[in-house]
Amino acid sequence: MPELAYVNGKVLPIQEARVPVEDRGYQFGDAVYEFFASYHNRIFAMEAHLDRLERSLNALSFDPIDREMIRRAIEETHHKAGIERAGIYLQISRGVAPRNHAFPAETEPQIVITVRPVPKIPQPVMEDGAEVITVTDIRWGRCDIKTIQLLPNSWAKQQAIEAGAHDAIFISSDGVVREGTACNVFIVANGTLLTHPLTNNILPGITRAYLIDICRNRDMPVRETFFDLSTMLAADEVFLTGTTTEVLPVTRIDGQAIGEGKPGPVARKLFEWFREKAASQI
Amino acid sequence: MPELAYVNGKVLPIQEARVPVEDRGYQFGDAVYEFFASYHNRIFAMEAHLDRLERSLNALSFDPIDREMIRRAIEETHHKAGIERAGIYLQISRGVAPRNHAFPAETEPQIVITVRPVPKIPQPVMEDGAEVITVTDIRWGRCDIKTIQLLPNSWAKQQAIEAGAHDAIFISSDGVVREGTACNVFIVANGTLLTHPLTNNILPGITRAYLIDICRNRDMPVRETFFDLSTMLAADEVFLTGTTTEVLPVTRIDGQAIGEGKPGPVARKLFEWFREKAASQI
Repeated sequence: MPELAYVNGKVLPIQEARVPVEDRGYQFGDAVYEFFASYHNRIFAMEAHLDRLERSLNALSFDPIDREMIRRAIEETHHKAGIERAGIYLQISRGVAPRNHAFPAETEPQIVITVRPVPKIPQPVMEDGAEVITVTDIRWGRCDIKTIQLLPNSWAKQQAIEAGAHDAIFISSDGVVREGTACNVFIVANGTLLTHPLTNNILPGITRAYLIDICRNRDMPVRETFFDLSTMLAADEVFLTGTTTEVLPVTRIDGQAIGEGKPGPVARKLFEWFREKAASQI
Repeated sequence: MPELAYVNGKVLPIQEARVPVEDRGYQFGDAVYEFFASYHNRIFAMEAHLDRLERSLNALSFDPIDREMIRRAIEETHHKAGIERAGIYLQISRGVAPRNHAFPAETEPQIVITVRPVPKIPQPVMEDGAEVITVTDIRWGRCDIKTIQLLPNSWAKQQAIEAGAHDAIFISSDGVVREGTACNVFIVANGTLLTHPLTNNILPGITRAYLIDICRNRDMPVRETFFDLSTMLAADEVFLTGTTTEVLPVTRIDGQAIGEGKPGPVARKLFEWFREKAASQI
């Protein structure tokens, strides 16, 4: 199971993969990314991820990329790594140019992929549910674009770890529950699932979209609507969703138990349905 | 005049300088920076920049760095490049580690320096003053820390260029004038200089601090206070300040002339005094 990287067409061990210091990703965070997971050697939701990638590239006026080339690069690097449950990280930066804030006139997008085993959620968290903290959302105003402007996410995750928690949930300055550091948030209130609508302030999560779709197909009521911290704390269930996270129950927020403080039936059911969906696609 | 880079102790041509793809600067923007300028081969305001660098590193819980080592690295790389009016870019990332939002437990800060001729402001802009546009400030909430969370700055600068302007000034969602994409903003209103106070929303500019100091020593009234876009548009003078920018008059904002639409006497005087200060330090 080698851990491999791909850099502009070349596949090599991750530790040997290098980029120029004047890559705009390194000096301006001028890069977008996607994170794919494979189940039994097959990459899940590839087209949905590539759609979102194209949306990110367009939003930032990157030169168009060859979707087939990207798909092939991902598949070949994944295949060579031979990791059956892999986490595949793809990053595309605007290119390499002498440092200058304005976009360079002529430069080639830099494409980097890494393939590793998918990060594991610790077993006690899987079984008992996650404890999370809340933090004020100080991120920039375009969290809907999947860029590497991730220092506030990284910082919030670190605060969570230092507090003995699994993750942090961003709350807007006026109290709206947004999302986790690398996942969306759902709550169950009065038998209905609620999650933040798609705005500039959250990532349009692919797992989020799959779950909404699954709920609609199974007549489980779901609404995309704003809700505040007190509503979340009073919910019957809270859970996180994402490519790595899948569906992860939250049982404690800022030290306070959610519902009975145990993973709830809706999250359990959705996790099962999501895994079925993942299995059906592969 | 070779353009040189320094990467963790090694000096080489910029084009050959590389960093690992899993440098946290490249995947999370988890890095801080400083930009120094030299006048006649001597680096200006070195200690003030190193103070701010340490403040940035502390704010983000980076491991402490050896200030003397950094100073030596900067001076030696600058000396080897032999560029008498150089722009020296220093970036320190948290280190290299397998991608994970939380801060890695054990990693070495990565230190990169590049030395090039200082970017020149176009002659017509120097002579006639700059035209700028205003944009909504969508940056993150800790612009006081000099990190590479710079995509919104880069994007705003690009919007300015596309509008035929020199730069963009960030305006908060409630109308407060913050700063430029890589510079602070001063206005002259009723004979007093005004500039945004030091909060989490602007960079504590070194040129800004020098100018405030110069004004106080010369009995020129200056106040650190909030002011809004309409106040700026009605000001007698507006100017930008920064390491590259020095003191640059703004003569047109969003197409509207400022004062008489020509560089004003206060900005001219301050530029002269600032250059004297720079000369006296070297």
